[in-house]
Amino acid sequence: MLAKSTDELLSLLSRNKAELDQIALDYLPRSHSDPSISNLYEMMRDYPKRGGKGIRGLMCILWCQLFGGTREDALVTAAALEIFQNWILIHDDIEDESDLRRGSPVLHKKYGVPLSINAGDALHGKMWELLLSNRDRLGERTTISVLSEFCTMLNETTEGQHIELSWSCSDNWDVDEQDYFLMVTKKAAWYTCIAPSRLGVMLSSSKSKTPPSIELLDRLITTGKHLGIAFQIIDDVLNLTASQEKYGKEILGDIYEGKRTLMLIHCLKESSEEERNHMISVLSKPRLSKTEDEVRDIFEKMGSSGSIDYARRVAQEHYEKSIHWFEEITSDEGAAHPDSKETIKLLYEYAAQRDY
Amino acid sequence: MLAKSTDELLSLLSRNKAELDQIALDYLPRSHSDPSISNLYEMMRDYPKRGGKGIRGLMCILWCQLFGGTREDALVTAAALEIFQNWILIHDDIEDESDLRRGSPVLHKKYGVPLSINAGDALHGKMWELLLSNRDRLGERTTISVLSEFCTMLNETTEGQHIELSWSCSDNWDVDEQDYFLMVTKKAAWYTCIAPSRLGVMLSSSKSKTPPSIELLDRLITTGKHLGIAFQIIDDVLNLTASQEKYGKEILGDIYEGKRTLMLIHCLKESSEEERNHMISVLSKPRLSKTEDEVRDIFEKMGSSGSIDYARRVAQEHYEKSIHWFEEITSDEGAAHPDSKETIKLLYEYAAQRDY
Repeated sequence: MLAKSTDELLSLLSRNKAELDQIALDYLPRSHSDPSISNLYEMMRDYPKRGGKGIRGLMCILWCQLFGGTREDALVTAAALEIFQNWILIHDDIEDESDLRRGSPVLHKKYGVPLSINAGDALHGKMWELLLSNRDRLGERTTISVLSEFCTMLNETTEGQHIELSWSCSDNWDVDEQDYFLMVTKKAAWYTCIAPSRLGVMLSSSKSKTPPSIELLDRLITTGKHLGIAFQIIDDVLNLTASQEKYGKEILGDIYEGKRTLMLIHCLKESSEEERNHMISVLSKPRLSKTEDEVRDIFEKMGSSGSIDYARRVAQEHYEKSIHWFEEITSDEGAAHPDSKETIKLLYEYAAQRDY
Repeated sequence: MLAKSTDELLSLLSRNKAELDQIALDYLPRSHSDPSISNLYEMMRDYPKRGGKGIRGLMCILWCQLFGGTREDALVTAAALEIFQNWILIHDDIEDESDLRRGSPVLHKKYGVPLSINAGDALHGKMWELLLSNRDRLGERTTISVLSEFCTMLNETTEGQHIELSWSCSDNWDVDEQDYFLMVTKKAAWYTCIAPSRLGVMLSSSKSKTPPSIELLDRLITTGKHLGIAFQIIDDVLNLTASQEKYGKEILGDIYEGKRTLMLIHCLKESSEEERNHMISVLSKPRLSKTEDEVRDIFEKMGSSGSIDYARRVAQEHYEKSIHWFEEITSDEGAAHPDSKETIKLLYEYAAQRDY
């Protein structure tokens, strides 16, 4: 079930994601004698039913296979990673006042904020429960290591989200590239790349006596960090340049939201003080007060100041570093299951260079 | 450190709560080189610093001792129960649009909704991490049972919260006593009484080979459910009758919020159709549109229709049932550590009959 070309990878991603979502949906409760509770269950099943790319789940499975584990060893944990993304997106969509998620209205536009915060918490609880259900296969030691890794991932993700929200809540535009990289490493790289790879390696050793070395787990932070930065930059570029239909979120939504992306940071730096002040005065307005023309002006300024090309170049550099570290790790650790290695490289390429 | 009188219980509660909060605060991160992340940590430490009664933590410790465990076996889990309450209250306060928590503005009035949802999630993660840190003392089997019990508690609590929120979100006043008891069992009894007692018993057996029987754990649901219902009814009565200073939340806040309490359900049932329609038209208004006179009228109607006395009687019946089941369980199980038994009975009495 591994891939030798980008087309095969896309097909693998899609089949794998469908299987992981099915594991999650089979695990999540469906109905209750109390109709109100059935309604909660429906809310919890909403985002998992919307699909998505499934990069995180596949990343976890492939790293497990690369280090000699089986796909089955990683399946439930990979499904829990997808649940993690779903519950945290319910909360993020409220925090960021987003409108669309995977082509449909965000959960709180359908059910209101109070019920949606609570449904996110309920789904969050199910993630831990699913991970605990895994102990017959994994044994207690690995189950506990996996739970611990999920705690670390949650710490990092909430810290990253806090940094980004603080910028918008305090109308802070004094954000440089280093601030951006710290935020993105925590908010995106950790749960997209770092934790999935570390979990995969942990799961590969569930039947052996020796857990993976701290050194190896540390090196996975390095490759995952670079890949995650590239992934997020490209995600932000696509918010500007992708077609609505393929992308699933609102095009130029990041400008409406005033999101501090690498393009925006670069563009503000390259602008005259007058231009910068004008752009900030637009960006600081509530999203509904921004006109289409104002948003388009900023988008065009990013193009003319070379910010989009610059961001693509930075993403490429980080992608190359991630591949460099990936090669180092696999060669030093003798983790050479050739099919998995090739497929992970295709997945890295897709994460960092995709066009939707 | 056990209690022989209500005064001694209050002193025990207070000392115990201070110790549990300290365990939580020592565990939670304090500062970070990035000032924004330090700000997140400050938000996470805010509710744990506000104190509270500490019924849940003490309940867990006493049940552990009653079944032959030590106080030390239960301390970290009891501290995690207090963290559970704190993170879920951050979210509840947003969902219920509350103003005050333990005498001070709710977290989202200080920091805004987006940062507060995220801080609740971050504190939630720390709860699991703290529970995992416990495995050297408890061993892997009990650690996993404890985690599993926290999952069940979270399932029940979010279901109860969903039921209650659904009533207000859909402006549903067709709520009877059975609906109320289902909601309260899930939303309050589970995490206040049922889970703490079950956890205490699980922790008492961490060093033995035999975990507690399913039958015993089931019977703890029965006593805990009755106690929890009594606890919540009294909590709602106090919202009407306590002094602001002692109570820490807004007096008559439940009427402003339109909360479906046992008093309100009784009062609506006892009223003529015309009176009921009038009351509902007031209760349905947003809290800021309700005048002080309108709220006071409803409060007085609850008094004159005997609803407050009725609720106190129902609470007393549930309290008596909880004590009956407590006596049955302790006698059948031979769990007769006499000091703990006496102290738990004082704690039951306090939970169900307190005047603040």
